[in-house]
Amino acid sequence: MTTAELTLTAPPGTGAACCAPLVREGIAPDAAAELARAFKALGDPTRVRLLSLVAAHEGAEACVCDLTEPVGLAQPTVSHHLKILVDAGLLTREKRGKWAYYAVVPGALTRLGALLTESTRT
Amino acid sequence: MTTAELTLTAPPGTGAACCAPLVREGIAPDAAAELARAFKALGDPTRVRLLSLVAAHEGAEACVCDLTEPVGLAQPTVSHHLKILVDAGLLTREKRGKWAYYAVVPGALTRLGALLTESTRT
Repeated sequence: MTTAELTLTAPPGTGAACCAPLVREGIAPDAAAELARAFKALGDPTRVRLLSLVAAHEGAEACVCDLTEPVGLAQPTVSHHLKILVDAGLLTREKRGKWAYYAVVPGALTRLGALLTESTRT
Repeated sequence: MTTAELTLTAPPGTGAACCAPLVREGIAPDAAAELARAFKALGDPTRVRLLSLVAAHEGAEACVCDLTEPVGLAQPTVSHHLKILVDAGLLTREKRGKWAYYAVVPGALTRLGALLTESTRT
């Protein structure tokens, strides 16, 4: 069923006395799948460390060459993890000369949280 | 290696000119694993919908009996997903009479984001 079919009352037989009313609709299934993808990007300790490391650099931006050593992984592996964070909208990537630079998207996580818990009609 | 071993300069041979300095340490590996677990809880479309549905109820609290119908899953399955969200610190659970009630932990996601991108020495 879609969220458009949500009712304000309990389903028959479940005891309506227990139930607080909906004050808005929940997130639509398509949007939920998209959000889950973004959160899944952070469901990995290495990616959490990489995002934190980028944020810990001056200007919340770091060169990929600064990130391999702290996490103890080869650059292709680190770049793979960083790409997942970029695709999730949590980092941006910019190539400058020899290196790729990654920057934290300010407020990205707060926005994801707002999508989850605020009005989410799509 | 631990975050305590992080250096402020690039590893030898990578070309130091590219690199912005660290302004603080990144998150510690143990804390990263804990955070990843919380984000992983939201890396599933059903759990995203359930958290959103709880938030959409009056008082950001809902009875499990209100949540089965919208997501089209049996109550044991829904309760399993809700337990994962409770274990991740995103929902609280309270048994009142016949039903379990779930409430959104205010600001939980914002706090997770802050742990990621602010000072995270542990």
